[in-house]
Amino acid sequence: MSVWIYPGSFDPITLGHENIIARGAKLCDTLYVAVLENHSKHPTFTTDEKIELIKECTSHMPNVVVECFSGLLADYAKQKDADAILRGIRNTGDYEYEHNMSQLNKKLNSNIETVFVCAEPELACISSSSVKEIAKLGGDFSWMVNKNIYNKLKDYINRRK
Amino acid sequence: MSVWIYPGSFDPITLGHENIIARGAKLCDTLYVAVLENHSKHPTFTTDEKIELIKECTSHMPNVVVECFSGLLADYAKQKDADAILRGIRNTGDYEYEHNMSQLNKKLNSNIETVFVCAEPELACISSSSVKEIAKLGGDFSWMVNKNIYNKLKDYINRRK
Amino acid sequence: MSVWIYPGSFDPITLGHENIIARGAKLCDTLYVAVLENHSKHPTFTTDEKIELIKECTSHMPNVVVECFSGLLADYAKQKDADAILRGIRNTGDYEYEHNMSQLNKKLNSNIETVFVCAEPELACISSSSVKEIAKLGGDFSWMVNKNIYNKLKDYINRRK
Amino acid sequence: MSVWIYPGSFDPITLGHENIIARGAKLCDTLYVAVLENHSKHPTFTTDEKIELIKECTSHMPNVVVECFSGLLADYAKQKDADAILRGIRNTGDYEYEHNMSQLNKKLNSNIETVFVCAEPELACISSSSVKEIAKLGGDFSWMVNKNIYNKLKDYINRRK
Amino acid sequence: MSVWIYPGSFDPITLGHENIIARGAKLCDTLYVAVLENHSKHPTFTTDEKIELIKECTSHMPNVVVECFSGLLADYAKQKDADAILRGIRNTGDYEYEHNMSQLNKKLNSNIETVFVCAEPELACISSSSVKEIAKLGGDFSWMVNKNIYNKLKDYINRRK
Amino acid sequence: MSVWIYPGSFDPITLGHENIIARGAKLCDTLYVAVLENHSKHPTFTTDEKIELIKECTSHMPNVVVECFSGLLADYAKQKDADAILRGIRNTGDYEYEHNMSQLNKKLNSNIETVFVCAEPELACISSSSVKEIAKLGGDFSWMVNKNIYNKLKDYINRRK
Repeated sequence: MSVWIYPGSFDPITLGHENIIARGAKLCDTLYVAVLENHSKHPTFTTDEKIELIKECTSHMPNVVVECFSGLLADYAKQKDADAILRGIRNTGDYEYEHNMSQLNKKLNSNIETVFVCAEPELACISSSSVKEIAKLGGDFSWMVNKNIYNKLKDYINRRK
Repeated sequence: MSVWIYPGSFDPITLGHENIIARGAKLCDTLYVAVLENHSKHPTFTTDEKIELIKECTSHMPNVVVECFSGLLADYAKQKDADAILRGIRNTGDYEYEHNMSQLNKKLNSNIETVFVCAEPELACISSSSVKEIAKLGGDFSWMVNKNIYNKLKDYINRRK
Repeated sequence: MSVWIYPGSFDPITLGHENIIARGAKLCDTLYVAVLENHSKHPTFTTDEKIELIKECTSHMPNVVVECFSGLLADYAKQKDADAILRGIRNTGDYEYEHNMSQLNKKLNSNIETVFVCAEPELACISSSSVKEIAKLGGDFSWMVNKNIYNKLKDYINRRK
Repeated sequence: MSVWIYPGSFDPITLGHENIIARGAKLCDTLYVAVLENHSKHPTFTTDEKIELIKECTSHMPNVVVECFSGLLADYAKQKDADAILRGIRNTGDYEYEHNMSQLNKKLNSNIETVFVCAEPELACISSSSVKEIAKLGGDFSWMVNKNIYNKLKDYINRRK
Repeated sequence: MSVWIYPGSFDPITLGHENIIARGAKLCDTLYVAVLENHSKHPTFTTDEKIELIKECTSHMPNVVVECFSGLLADYAKQKDADAILRGIRNTGDYEYEHNMSQLNKKLNSNIETVFVCAEPELACISSSSVKEIAKLGGDFSWMVNKNIYNKLKDYINRRK
Repeated sequence: MSVWIYPGSFDPITLGHENIIARGAKLCDTLYVAVLENHSKHPTFTTDEKIELIKECTSHMPNVVVECFSGLLADYAKQKDADAILRGIRNTGDYEYEHNMSQLNKKLNSNIETVFVCAEPELACISSSSVKEIAKLGGDFSWMVNKNIYNKLKDYINRRK
């Protein structure tokens, strides 16, 4: 029974995230999509909204569980008895950041492995912040997010403008 | 039943390779360590020698199978019905190369995923060529390879000087 | 009739920017230097000041037009019927950022191309923020900006300290 | 009248090259696709074959001229009175190499500019060598090259195996 | 008599910093560890606390002098008649940043050289911010800082939570 | 008495090398410029020619000693009782390579430090191979090498064409 964790801010979930989740879910028995509650940052979406949107995008994947966590990822991984943390990499900047985090996490929990997959080329330019920026400026972001959540997302973002 | 492949030249196997194998073997049910037979390159070790050395280093890992393959990795992966190719990354140069290969392999076999893990920091400077270079120049390479194969390796390299 | 756009914050214009403008202006019929008005950021200079300074630096280039824009660059490009966005690259960090932006802009406006030129080596360390930082700390920034605007700039920055 | 040069080995031309040519041809009046004859390297295709294949792929672009050149690119550019050299960039490795070449070329011919465009994400994994490697190993490379030259190319490569 | 400067925020000093100081101190006659007082940033520790902690970690190195400075590093270097600025590099991101700073500093003070050493691999994931983040979330950071200051540090951080 | 080593192939010495030597010589008491004799590579210049050219370029620097060495750099450093190896870095590719070498050298000789300085921006595009390539193709390389050795170099290269 292999357990993997895909942690993130998901502010909001994009097609880039969704692609990593779908690919990761095939490689393990249970994949926890873990929304980080960071009380010092000011996300655009509430944790409840984030979880609701992720659940809507991943409802067809039976081995995906959506949760939130706070504190150290290494501790959350211990609690879930996880084998690996999953991360998507879009470019060398991402690689350097994730490399560093994986080294820190292993120091904090020597049982946890971090595995990387590369973003699909055509999705590599998508990030939560680019979704929000383009939405705020009235651009078309329908190609960046799941079509089931597009309207809800549009609504959320407009309300926060 | 998840099947992963760890392909390479292993000319010869180093502690860096061994570390990736040990970590990968924990994340899947069967890990094929697949030695590429490339008839146009001129390796220092024969395929038989390479396999013998890898077997000696991995004999304590029951779910590791050592094999050789020729032709396209994507075809070998299909034949093994593999879920993923495993690769270790030491630096951004490695990352760029592996990123590219993973994109090519997915184009050739859309079922195959490539997963990456980062080299352990203290092993990141080890490569098969640095082992051979240092051995050839009479330097100490005992910290770069498995102690069980160190003497055999020394012998092989001396014979080929 | 080829139309290019060189967008930026220009807070303030540096010799690095000026060099890119001069080189870009030779490669197209009209080059719009487009100052982004971003109401959520807090620039050091007002849009009017920025435009005034750029005009002073580019007055000898007849095919350079200085304007401001707000909203999406892709929309501004459509409005100008532009063929290309021009960007200067100083290092691999810049490259990664610009690569990503060019992919986003093409998704938002499939007619727009992004072309890059490399910063001149001796200008590559200049940025608007380094100009302001050095000026604020009383260092010599005369080698970083156009001599015609140096005093005006010094004055502006001192007033804002 | 702007004249650009797109130099390369084109051993053979790929869909990646073709994409850069098509995008470059829209940004200038005449685009020279310039095949480098390098007598010290041993290309898979002859210069005549390379030119024939490029012509077949670019026949629908009226402002594209296919030629070969030897010697320094900076001299060839002078001879053509070219405004710019065009290069495609696939990743940061490419960027570093091209950055360096552009600096050298400007030193050799101060009138020549080098402009870069980024490879389309889904074409970024294609190179002449990966085409040849995959072809040699019997893999499907039809997605990597122009369909009009695919059979000719297959034939050429088989003959050279 | 060679004089080097190791500047930084040291908010707080980590084992990574300490390692660079120890290595740098062997390469020059006097090494100034220079704490930047930046009044626009809001550090976690006061300058006095930072200096106290650094002194405690470096008391066994007779040629290390701990000081604070404000203003331009290039001016401070002039004042100390320093030969070189010392910087540690952990990854390519650090390299790019430091490369740029060294170019700026040479422009501001042509007598000052910047020399780099690479972080020890096992310390490369340590930064002042990761120390504070992990401490704040209750994780074990004893492996990231000097054991003599660990308790004091823990105390400081807890008080600031 | 600090002793540093600047190792390389110097095939031939360029203004880039010369700049690093001049800067390094100011930071130590004795700088050994150490020409690697690598019997498996086929350099353009003989070791004697290389040494002669370097001596001509560095004769005005009294604390520079030109020598050749073979075998491991770590062993040569031990023999000279050197404190540091000096290396110049031109770009992130160089940085990654040198980072790796410094880690290997420390493993082979724990007393040896590697220090880096960044290439001067306007010299960063110069390498021994670009000198030879441009010279071979009849381009002007007078800006790439010391004017005292330019004619000698031209002569050597022509003879080897």
